[in-house]
Amino acid sequence: PDAAAIAAAEARNGQLTKPPGALGRLEKLAIWMGGWQGTDKPTADKPQIAIFAGNHGVTAKGVSAFPAEVTAQMVANFAHGGAAINQLARTFGARLDVHALELDRPTADFTEGPAMTEAEVVEALRRGHEAVSPDADLFVAGEMGIGNTTSAAAIATALYGGFGWAGRGTGVDDAGLRRKEAAVAAGIEKNAALMGDPLEVLRCLGGREIAAMAGAILGARMARVPVILDGFIACAAAAVLEKAAPGALDHCVAGHQSAEGAHARLLEKLGKEPLLNLGLRLGEGSGAALAIGVVQGAVACHSGMLTFAEAGVAAGA
Amino acid sequence: PDAAAIAAAEARNGQLTKPPGALGRLEKLAIWMGGWQGTDKPTADKPQIAIFAGNHGVTAKGVSAFPAEVTAQMVANFAHGGAAINQLARTFGARLDVHALELDRPTADFTEGPAMTEAEVVEALRRGHEAVSPDADLFVAGEMGIGNTTSAAAIATALYGGFGWAGRGTGVDDAGLRRKEAAVAAGIEKNAALMGDPLEVLRCLGGREIAAMAGAILGARMARVPVILDGFIACAAAAVLEKAAPGALDHCVAGHQSAEGAHARLLEKLGKEPLLNLGLRLGEGSGAALAIGVVQGAVACHSGMLTFAEAGVAAGA
Repeated sequence: PDAAAIAAAEARNGQLTKPPGALGRLEKLAIWMGGWQGTDKPTADKPQIAIFAGNHGVTAKGVSAFPAEVTAQMVANFAHGGAAINQLARTFGARLDVHALELDRPTADFTEGPAMTEAEVVEALRRGHEAVSPDADLFVAGEMGIGNTTSAAAIATALYGGFGWAGRGTGVDDAGLRRKEAAVAAGIEKNAALMGDPLEVLRCLGGREIAAMAGAILGARMARVPVILDGFIACAAAAVLEKAAPGALDHCVAGHQSAEGAHARLLEKLGKEPLLNLGLRLGEGSGAALAIGVVQGAVACHSGMLTFAEAGVAAGA
Repeated sequence: PDAAAIAAAEARNGQLTKPPGALGRLEKLAIWMGGWQGTDKPTADKPQIAIFAGNHGVTAKGVSAFPAEVTAQMVANFAHGGAAINQLARTFGARLDVHALELDRPTADFTEGPAMTEAEVVEALRRGHEAVSPDADLFVAGEMGIGNTTSAAAIATALYGGFGWAGRGTGVDDAGLRRKEAAVAAGIEKNAALMGDPLEVLRCLGGREIAAMAGAILGARMARVPVILDGFIACAAAAVLEKAAPGALDHCVAGHQSAEGAHARLLEKLGKEPLLNLGLRLGEGSGAALAIGVVQGAVACHSGMLTFAEAGVAAGA
């Protein structure tokens, strides 16, 4: 971030017609946006949402409440404007791009070996990296991929250890949750030799849409575009970057805390405080998209308010 | 609310292209909006924010970090578009009306007797009641009034008993906070004979802008316009109605939890779970205005998404 822009934004914040600190976290958000955008008057009127879709070999293990065909069906739904993310994008004036990543070629079942080859994971990272519009002033990466909460749980387990990273995803029953836990354990065991390297964790246990989200978050960093992180799966993608290079997520804010069981714990590992906590667990970038409104409010106040001097208002004691 | 509309909105919610419950609290919000608007496809594209401003005799007791002149100065700032609420109203497409209520005639100092006469409180209630636009599909009542966190603390103390309802408001120091606590205690003692009747509590300890907010919340109820409650002062106004007629706030949702000390406790008394918790403590309706974006997102998803059948997506197991 730009230290001079942060200092200028902080100075501006101190002169606006409000008691010091009265806009709470909105003030910090706006200053942070200014730092990444390199200005004391940040904007958030060109948000971009990119959704990445991928299919997962591990669905063969019965880890989802929905059939794998739903990934492609939902991509069609995105194209027709019928999904939740379409409505949220419209509400907050965001550009929405959908990237279907070889849906007819699922990743390999990670309980039997690496989910992707090196060429596959690099291609997915590249697709994500190139998806970030240079015009965007705020970026959200979302996903669609039946089976991908199992993949995300495996990544979190590999990165942080411990148990209980698998959750109910789109709504599996107890038996389904046990199958998810078994798949995670099997995936870690099968790929054990490679689990010390975060990028190998991504290749072995991730999916194309998860790798693409990681690539996009990195791409946004290069372009100095602030990012709102979505839920459990997006944060698993982000966690790979943070493990590989601590500080890699400094340009990211957590949009929300999902109802997916282990998301709160993952946010804690990332040191991110969510902006919203409304029980969403949909994916598609929906929680982060909803948080675009909060960031827009923060930036509008910071960049649009008059100072005490401009407005002729007496400052406090 | 309209039971048939609620049933229809619930049925619609169950058919939308998402796992059941995956939009969390947004689903409940949209159904609630539908109930009050009498439709299974509620809207939130005509939000109205009304700010009421009033001055308080109790400022003579040194209860604020700002001089009383700031009330009028901020009203001028609202008119020139320089305040936080102007930016938030613009961000979420809300109509913004500002009602300055006899700023050159502060209420009487409630530590020495009733703050308002009967005629004064009735006039303020009327101003609020009439402020609600019949066109609005969502309503926010905000306030500006140097000294009014002291008035709100006195109301909360009278309605619910106990101690510690006074907080730091716009930022008083320890001595200022002790003066606020003393003023609250003196106000309750001086007006003790009338504290059994919530509307007398409003008259004796409130202010014109607080009474107007109560009138506006009631006016919105008559017009079946859903309301987003703002912070501590707005909730003190609302609490008068709830005490007078339990259920009077069923058309209201809590927009946010303010950083003003006792707001969380007041929300608990009202049985309201806040949508946001971002440390705001500005007033002007700002926290509720920020929550307009959340309601717009909820309603957009509910009313705009396709059903599984419409989108050709397979439903879950």
